Amino acid sequence: MIYFDNSATTKPYKEVLDAFVTVSQNYFANPSSIHSKGGETERLIFQARKTVAGLLKVKPAEIIFTSGGTEGNNTAIKGIALKHQERGKHLITSEVEHASSYETFHYLESLGFEVTYLPVNSSGEISLEELEKSIRKDTILVSLIHVNNEVGTIQPIVDAGKILKNFPKVFFHVDHVQGIGKVPLPFKEASIDLCTMSGHKFHGLKGTGILYKREGITLSPLLTGGEQEASVRAGTENVAGIVSIAKALRMTFDRMEYGIRSMETVKQKMMDELSVMEGITINTPSNSAPHIINFSIHGVKPEVMIHTLDQKGIYVSTRSACSSKQAGASRILLAMGLGEKKAGTAIRMSLSFDNTLDEAEVVLKELKNAVVQLQTVMG
Amino acid sequence: MIYFDNSATTKPYKEVLDAFVTVSQNYFANPSSIHSKGGETERLIFQARKTVAGLLKVKPAEIIFTSGGTEGNNTAIKGIALKHQERGKHLITSEVEHASSYETFHYLESLGFEVTYLPVNSSGEISLEELEKSIRKDTILVSLIHVNNEVGTIQPIVDAGKILKNFPKVFFHVDHVQGIGKVPLPFKEASIDLCTMSGHKFHGLKGTGILYKREGITLSPLLTGGEQEASVRAGTENVAGIVSIAKALRMTFDRMEYGIRSMETVKQKMMDELSVMEGITINTPSNSAPHIINFSIHGVKPEVMIHTLDQKGIYVSTRSACSSKQAGASRILLAMGLGEKKAGTAIRMSLSFDNTLDEAEVVLKELKNAVVQLQTVMG
Repeated sequence: MIYFDNSATTKPYKEVLDAFVTVSQNYFANPSSIHSKGGETERLIFQARKTVAGLLKVKPAEIIFTSGGTEGNNTAIKGIALKHQERGKHLITSEVEHASSYETFHYLESLGFEVTYLPVNSSGEISLEELEKSIRKDTILVSLIHVNNEVGTIQPIVDAGKILKNFPKVFFHVDHVQGIGKVPLPFKEASIDLCTMSGHKFHGLKGTGILYKREGITLSPLLTGGEQEASVRAGTENVAGIVSIAKALRMTFDRMEYGIRSMETVKQKMMDELSVMEGITINTPSNSAPHIINFSIHGVKPEVMIHTLDQKGIYVSTRSACSSKQAGASRILLAMGLGEKKAGTAIRMSLSFDNTLDEAEVVLKELKNAVVQLQTVMG
Repeated sequence: MIYFDNSATTKPYKEVLDAFVTVSQNYFANPSSIHSKGGETERLIFQARKTVAGLLKVKPAEIIFTSGGTEGNNTAIKGIALKHQERGKHLITSEVEHASSYETFHYLESLGFEVTYLPVNSSGEISLEELEKSIRKDTILVSLIHVNNEVGTIQPIVDAGKILKNFPKVFFHVDHVQGIGKVPLPFKEASIDLCTMSGHKFHGLKGTGILYKREGITLSPLLTGGEQEASVRAGTENVAGIVSIAKALRMTFDRMEYGIRSMETVKQKMMDELSVMEGITINTPSNSAPHIINFSIHGVKPEVMIHTLDQKGIYVSTRSACSSKQAGASRILLAMGLGEKKAGTAIRMSLSFDNTLDEAEVVLKELKNAVVQLQTVMG
C-alpha cells in the first residue's frame, strides 16, 4: 500500500495509540471528580497542556483541547463573531478556506454578519494590499487558512499579522490544520490571536484537536455547560485523546526537520516528472507546503483515476476529503482561475514524513500507465 | 479499589478499547475519501449506525454520532431553538437539568429566548400538570433530563411525551445520559424527537456520543463545515470512536437485565443500611434509577468525607462531576427544597453492573467509621 492521502488523514503513530490505551485503561476517572483518581487524570491533562504549550511556544492557559479541526474553526470564528458583534459585524476571510471555515462564514452571513471573501491569484494567494484595504471600522475578525488543503499554497500569515498589528481591535484567526508540523508558523511574530489544529492530520487520533487562544481573548463558547477548558469548551475532557494529541505533536516536532526535508525531496521528484508528462498541468504553486501535489489530467475524470490507482494499491484523492462527495469542480481551483475543465479533473497527492522516493517512483509509473490507458479510452 | 463514581464516568470495557485500537490501526482512512480505504471506513460507520439504531429501535438515519453528552445537549437544544425561532421563542425545561442543558438555556435567554424552568417536588420530579400548563402558543421545545445525575430521580418521560403529543409543534428533547443502559426508555412511546447519550457513561470512551434525531426534524447545526453526519455534525468522523460506542452500547444492552438487577440489589442494601445510620439523610427518592445513591451527612463537609474514603481506596463524589468544583450547595438538592445544610453536605455514590454486595459492605463499614470519626472531630 502506498498512502498518498495524508492531507485527508494520517495513520496514527503506534506510540500515540499506546498512550491512548494506557490512559483509557489506567486513568479512566473523570478529571472533574475531586477524589484522587480524578486528581491523577487532571494532572495528565495539565501535563499534556504544558507539553503542547511548550512545543508551540505559548502559555499552557492558551491551549484549549477540542474534538478536532472543525470544532476549532467553529469555536474561533463563531465565538469571536458572536461575542464581539456589538463592536461591528464585518468579517474578513478568503475564497480558499476549508469548508469548516467557509461554511461557518456563510452561517454567520445568515445571522446578519457581512463577510468579505478575499480573492486569490493564480497561485492561490491573497493580496496583502487587498487585505489591508478591506479592513473597516466595523471589522472584528480576519480568518485565514495557513496552508491550503487542496493545493498547498502558503498564505503570507506573518505579513498579514504585521498589517493587523496596526488594527488592534481586529482579531486574527489562522486555520493551521494543514500547516502544523509541515510549515512552521511563529504564532507570536504573526500576531495570531486564535489558531486551529487537528490531531489526525499529524498522526494523532481522530476526534482530537487543539485551539490556541491568546491570553485575555474572550469568546462565546460553542459548547456551554461545565467549566472544563476554562469554560471555553464544556464537556468531560477526552483525557486519553488529550494525552495522545500531545504525544503526536511532540513526535511530529521531534521528527519535523528530517520530515520536511524528506517530503520536499519526494515532492520535488513528483513535480519534476509530472511537469514533463503529456496532458498534465500542475496546480500546486512554487510557494507551497512540502506535502501537497495537486495536478489536473486532461480529459480524465479524477474518480476514474483514483479507482485505477486504487487497484494498484495507491491511495490519492481529488480534493478536500470534507468536500470530496460534492459534485462539480473544486471551489479552490475555480477561485484560482483555473476554469471548469482543470478544476474538474484535479488529483491531490499528499505526503507524510514516511513516504519515500521509491514510493514516488511506483506512483509515477502507475500514473503514467493509467494516463495513457484512460486518455486512450476516453479520447 | 472500590469505584462508586460511575455517574461521573465508567471504566471502558476491554473489548471497546480493543475495537478502538483495531480500527485506529487498520482502518485509519478518512471515510470521506473516495478510494477503497475510505470506503472501508465508511462501511464501518454504516455498520455502527445500524447496530446503534437496532439497539435503540430507531432508524439508522436517525443516529448522529457526536463527541459526547455536552455536544448532544447543545446540538439538540440550540439547534432546535435557533432553527425554529420564527415560530416562537419560548422554551421549557426543569430546574434539575445537567449543566450542559441548564447553561445552554441560560445562553439562549441571553439571545432573547424565554425559558420556563419547571420546579420539582421533594423527590426531584416535575409536575405533569405544570408542564402542560406552561405550554404556550410560542413554545417550540421541551427538554427534560430522564434520570437526574445527582439523585437518580426518574422523570415521567413517557407521560410527558403523551401530553406533548397533543402539541405537535413542540419538539421534545430528552437528556438520556444517565438513563441509557440503566432505565429503559421507549423512544417511540414517549414521542421523543431528540435524545442525548454519552459513551463514557456506559463503559465506552470519552469523546464519543450519540444524538437521536427523529427523521424529518431539522435543526441548525452547531458545527458547520463538511457534510458528515447528514450535515448535522460537520467534521471528520471519529471512526474508531464510533465503532467503539456501538460496541459499548451492544455490550451494555446484552448485560442490562442482569446488570440492573445487580445494581438494584447493591443499592437496596446501601439504602437500607444508610437509612438507619445516625446523622444521615437519604436524598435519593424511591422512584429512582438503580445506580445512584445520594445522602447528606450531618455536619461533615463532603470534600472531607471524600478524602477520608479515598484513603481507603473508595471513590465517590459530591455531585455532578461537571459542577463538582463549584462552591456552595448543590443546585439540584436546593431545587428539591432540601435547604442549604443538607444540600451542602451531600455524597453521591453511583454503581455499575460490576459493583458487588461485598464492595457495598466495605463501603458501609468505612463510611460508618468515617462518620463517627469526622462527626467527633467536627462536633
